[in-house]
Amino acid sequence: MIKLEIPKSHPRYESLRQREKLVTLYNSGIVTISGLISHGRGEAFDYILGERTSEFALESEKAALDKLTKSSRPVVSVNGNAAALAGAEMVEFAKKYNIALEANLFHWSKERIEKIVDMFEKMGLKILGKNQDERIPGLDGPRARCEREGIFSADTVLIPLEDGDRAEALKRMGKFVITVDLNPLSRTSRFGDISIVDDVRRVFINMNNLEKKDYSGKSQKFDNSKNVQEILKLMGSRLESMREWPEID
Amino acid sequence: MIKLEIPKSHPRYESLRQREKLVTLYNSGIVTISGLISHGRGEAFDYILGERTSEFALESEKAALDKLTKSSRPVVSVNGNAAALAGAEMVEFAKKYNIALEANLFHWSKERIEKIVDMFEKMGLKILGKNQDERIPGLDGPRARCEREGIFSADTVLIPLEDGDRAEALKRMGKFVITVDLNPLSRTSRFGDISIVDDVRRVFINMNNLEKKDYSGKSQKFDNSKNVQEILKLMGSRLESMREWPEID
Repeated sequence: MIKLEIPKSHPRYESLRQREKLVTLYNSGIVTISGLISHGRGEAFDYILGERTSEFALESEKAALDKLTKSSRPVVSVNGNAAALAGAEMVEFAKKYNIALEANLFHWSKERIEKIVDMFEKMGLKILGKNQDERIPGLDGPRARCEREGIFSADTVLIPLEDGDRAEALKRMGKFVITVDLNPLSRTSRFGDISIVDDVRRVFINMNNLEKKDYSGKSQKFDNSKNVQEILKLMGSRLESMREWPEID
Repeated sequence: MIKLEIPKSHPRYESLRQREKLVTLYNSGIVTISGLISHGRGEAFDYILGERTSEFALESEKAALDKLTKSSRPVVSVNGNAAALAGAEMVEFAKKYNIALEANLFHWSKERIEKIVDMFEKMGLKILGKNQDERIPGLDGPRARCEREGIFSADTVLIPLEDGDRAEALKRMGKFVITVDLNPLSRTSRFGDISIVDDVRRVFINMNNLEKKDYSGKSQKFDNSKNVQEILKLMGSRLESMREWPEID
């Protein structure tokens, strides 16, 4: 659906390809300007992590999948950046685990919501979001909008690349909140019951490839605060050891 | 010139104000999409640094100013992001130290060059860039363009937020290269003889406020590789110690 023109031989092919997807969906009105800047922030944290899933992130992904598959009303929130960066992987995820997706925007417009829902429909998946008949308490304006049958009634929400206020408001509603954010220090990450610090596309690829025996029961003993601390330690030691200035920019 | 609508009481006022300037100049065609994403990367590194100038960055700024004021043909390169983020501070710098600025673009267009030159002219400073009659050897296409009387003949160039290829090409020309890049691991930072790891606006504010006795002679003993390693160590230890999840996102 998205045409790409970066040679596969480029050393940073995946990263540039993701950026190209984002710009394409920016041009079609799904991604916003602040989404582009946010992505840059994520890129920086991902550089520090070596642009790969850490062992700690994988543990959080196993715990997340265990929790999601055990919940009675799990919902995955989709915004512009998530759609651009991991749309295809989210479709596979939703079908494999039979978990609903709901388009949800911080910079809300009817048109953007419809574009995201239509984009997924073209990829073969009906998602929630066009019928926003409820509001998340404690949020002002259109960013509070959600569907009664979706996020509003969910017991567990997976909120990739979410705004900090929305993450906090969902937490205050008593939901089990799973975040995906490459910044382990963001407000969003702080409000996660499970805070996945990994690239959103890799998160869904990893969860799509996990065997049940790998993730089953992993949410019970998962210590989120310890996990995030391990990732901060990893990032810190990677930065300190990067004396050789590897080929990234 | 740029209207801002963020309340000064906001805890991250400066950062949001900088972002707003960038979006304003994106809308007027001076900043590019890839400039927006790059800025996000810079924001992430700046968070890690606590959004303030480290003692090591200040040392590099003193060394840079010493070198620039001692050079016979110093030139400061200005691209879209630098103009947006530190335009006023660069005008003050150019006037105070009598150092030429030259508009220089990676994503080149005649229109963008003219817009940047005109923007500075409105701020009361004539800058180079409209008369690009030379090329930086080893670069393809329009991004090689520069002025004979400016960057081409410069002995020392200060290149804030520069592309890695251009930084390398200027280095290969034998120039003394001073970079400004919040990513200490970027290719641009690697090609710096002095690599300033700090926010571009703070860099110019700091240099504008330095007394001659503070910077004079500071370029002689400056050890760039050691300085960058100290900054990497600082970033690493800050990340490792950020167990408390401060209020940033």
